[in-house]
Amino acid sequence: MSVFLLSELLDACQGMSAKFITQFGLKIKEVRERLELSQEDLADLAGLHRTHISLIERGQRSARLETIEKLAVALRVQPSELIPQIVMPKK
Amino acid sequence: MSVFLLSELLDACQGMSAKFITQFGLKIKEVRERLELSQEDLADLAGLHRTHISLIERGQRSARLETIEKLAVALRVQPSELIPQIVMPKK
Repeated sequence: MSVFLLSELLDACQGMSAKFITQFGLKIKEVRERLELSQEDLADLAGLHRTHISLIERGQRSARLETIEKLAVALRVQPSELIPQIVMPKK
Repeated sequence: MSVFLLSELLDACQGMSAKFITQFGLKIKEVRERLELSQEDLADLAGLHRTHISLIERGQRSARLETIEKLAVALRVQPSELIPQIVMPKK
C-alpha cells in the first residue's frame, strides 16, 4: 500500500471516529434535554464531573463503556439507545 | 451519607461496570466466532492489536467509542448491537 493511500485511509478512519463521538454527544444532549435535566443534574445522577458531560456532549471527549453505562442509567434508557447508527463502509 | 453507604454504593457501581464490560467482551467473541474469524483476523480487520481484542473479550479491558465503532465495522454489525442490555436499577 502506498504512503498516500495509507494516509488517506487514516484520515478517513479518524473522520469516522470523530463523527461517531460527535453523534454520541448529541444524543446524550438530546435525551438530557428531553428529560429537562441540566448538565449539572446529569453529572450528579451519573457520578461524573459536569465538565466531563460538557466535553462529551460537544464531541470533544470520547466515552468508555463504563461511562456509557453510567449515562444510560442516569438517563433511564438502554445504553444501546445512546449509540449512533453507522453507515457500513463497502467491503 | 455515611462512609459505609458510600463504600457499598461504590462497590455496587464497580460491580455494575465490570459486568457490563464482561458482557460486551462476550458479545464481541460471540459475533467473531459466528463469522469464523480468529482474534488475529478481527484485529487485522479492525486495525487493533490482537492483545487488545483478547483483553476486551475477557472483560479485562474496557473499550472507548472509537474502538466500539471499529469492532462493529469489522464485524459488519451496528455498534448498538454489540452493547449489552442492562437491568435498570430502581429509582
